[in-house]
Amino acid sequence: MRIVVDAMGGDHAPAAQVEGAVRAVQELPVEVILVGDEPSIIKQLEGKEFDRSKLFVIHTTEVISNNEPPLKAIREKKNSSMVVAANMLKNDQADAFVSAGSTGALLGAGTLLVGRIKGVERPALAPALPSDKGPWLLVDAGANVDCKPSHLLQFAIMGSIYMSEVMGIMEPRVALVNVGEEEKKGNELTKAVTPMLKAAPIHFTGNIEAREIPMGKADVIVCDGFVGNVILKLTEGLAQMFMGNLKNIFYRTPVTKLGALTVKKGLVDFKKKMDYTEYGGALLLGTRYPVIKAHGSSNAKAMFYAIKQANKFAEAKVTEKIAEEMKQSLKENTNAD
Amino acid sequence: MRIVVDAMGGDHAPAAQVEGAVRAVQELPVEVILVGDEPSIIKQLEGKEFDRSKLFVIHTTEVISNNEPPLKAIREKKNSSMVVAANMLKNDQADAFVSAGSTGALLGAGTLLVGRIKGVERPALAPALPSDKGPWLLVDAGANVDCKPSHLLQFAIMGSIYMSEVMGIMEPRVALVNVGEEEKKGNELTKAVTPMLKAAPIHFTGNIEAREIPMGKADVIVCDGFVGNVILKLTEGLAQMFMGNLKNIFYRTPVTKLGALTVKKGLVDFKKKMDYTEYGGALLLGTRYPVIKAHGSSNAKAMFYAIKQANKFAEAKVTEKIAEEMKQSLKENTNAD
Repeated sequence: MRIVVDAMGGDHAPAAQVEGAVRAVQELPVEVILVGDEPSIIKQLEGKEFDRSKLFVIHTTEVISNNEPPLKAIREKKNSSMVVAANMLKNDQADAFVSAGSTGALLGAGTLLVGRIKGVERPALAPALPSDKGPWLLVDAGANVDCKPSHLLQFAIMGSIYMSEVMGIMEPRVALVNVGEEEKKGNELTKAVTPMLKAAPIHFTGNIEAREIPMGKADVIVCDGFVGNVILKLTEGLAQMFMGNLKNIFYRTPVTKLGALTVKKGLVDFKKKMDYTEYGGALLLGTRYPVIKAHGSSNAKAMFYAIKQANKFAEAKVTEKIAEEMKQSLKENTNAD
Repeated sequence: MRIVVDAMGGDHAPAAQVEGAVRAVQELPVEVILVGDEPSIIKQLEGKEFDRSKLFVIHTTEVISNNEPPLKAIREKKNSSMVVAANMLKNDQADAFVSAGSTGALLGAGTLLVGRIKGVERPALAPALPSDKGPWLLVDAGANVDCKPSHLLQFAIMGSIYMSEVMGIMEPRVALVNVGEEEKKGNELTKAVTPMLKAAPIHFTGNIEAREIPMGKADVIVCDGFVGNVILKLTEGLAQMFMGNLKNIFYRTPVTKLGALTVKKGLVDFKKKMDYTEYGGALLLGTRYPVIKAHGSSNAKAMFYAIKQANKFAEAKVTEKIAEEMKQSLKENTNAD
């Protein structure tokens, strides 16, 4: 497998990107192409030991920032690390693509340059989030803030294929975010999509209220991108608030600091359970080849896990299986006409 | 002030309702009317000391449960505690109404029996939620899962009036839940309402991302009821998950239990900050007279605080001030035509 990495995207680029890539070629059966400013990349590579036949550098001169209009940037910055990397994926020079750069620009590059799988109406952004019982997949986390029922149906199918093929979950439980458990509850969108989800080739377990989301009751949780963005960011914000308060409580006096020592292991384990950098990045589901959006604040470890995930994403042939499923459902719809 | 309380609604009815009401007449300048099954209420009152001239019981024979279709129940169960209490409010026999019963039925009773303030398109459900810097008001938390821009505008105005009149906040900061801070971000609804919020007689501070919600950056946070319901319930679910994990960490061994003792005070204070039973219940904003929805799981303490809040809600003449503001904006709209 060959993974192309946008070396210039993210808060800690290119250092974190280069270090993550080096660890990837050391530990995983992958080759990595780093795309970005060659002198900066070479400088970061200095002194590092790795198999040079497995790591390549492609020089680019431009960078897309978080602050520019994403689609305009994609169109105009032809020699940016993101555009060049996306085109390499499209042109079969790599099997998967990882970037910690602008989410909007990556969505644009995924849709416009890499292209959609035939039949997929809207690619979705799908991060894995922590629960009491392990990670689950949120689809969509913000790529599509206004959704039609058919979009949500496709999110459910794509998420289910990923969780089964990559995570090895038999019959992933797919749930729909709603304001109540009863089938009749919901807004226009959830009411319209419910019968479609019931008829889809997935294990649909019905509605899930947001209160139940952290309990690990579903493997794939489906909602429109506005709601998904709220779920993603509120989880981050509340976790940060809790951890911050806990820290203050423990750092108050020498005695509390001593108390903290007794539970240190437990807290570290819990923090690790909540830390989703090890899950990799967010998937772009529905593009023709695998694209991974690493968190903007990714460190070297997070980049390594994102590359590892990209490798699994490509190895499990998820995009091919989504394409197969879409073809099937397009055929069924045509027959039904 | 006279507060009418649905004695039969809620998981711990009528015991919690009666005990909360007794405490209210002991500690607050209020009279309370308990509406429900008289023998059960009388039994709960036995042995309690309070001024009998301040507490009344109205006997009813029916109860509306959480499991029946709310509007049908409101129409058919004329002698239910909720319907009788709502009608007493409407007929000026009380100044405010508190129920811990079915949310759907209470919304129905509020809209159909108590009635909307002239000009208010949709009453909203508005609970106070905890943040690092004290409570803030969420409007709407689930009464209206499909919203028009004009609904959100009214939520913002009503929430702002409540926070200024009842909570004494000068120029409450009103923010709109969105997927990014930039004004151009959002779905069709948020894009349409943004210019309306900027022109409204409120202190609109712009978009708020869900990550920032727990940081206490706004006093009133506005969104459609589907999104609001997700915010409310995810906050509950994550708080529960964190506290549960923390408990497990501390109860692991005798040594960790000793460690827990050192931070007990800090944890109790933090839990108290997060515990919103002391904020009272959720407001119904937009009904002609004050209605409070207490949490279904309310204990006596929560019922007491809900009655206290109902008293402040009525005393501050919030409904009158909302009516005045609506009249003003109706007039402006007519002049503009």
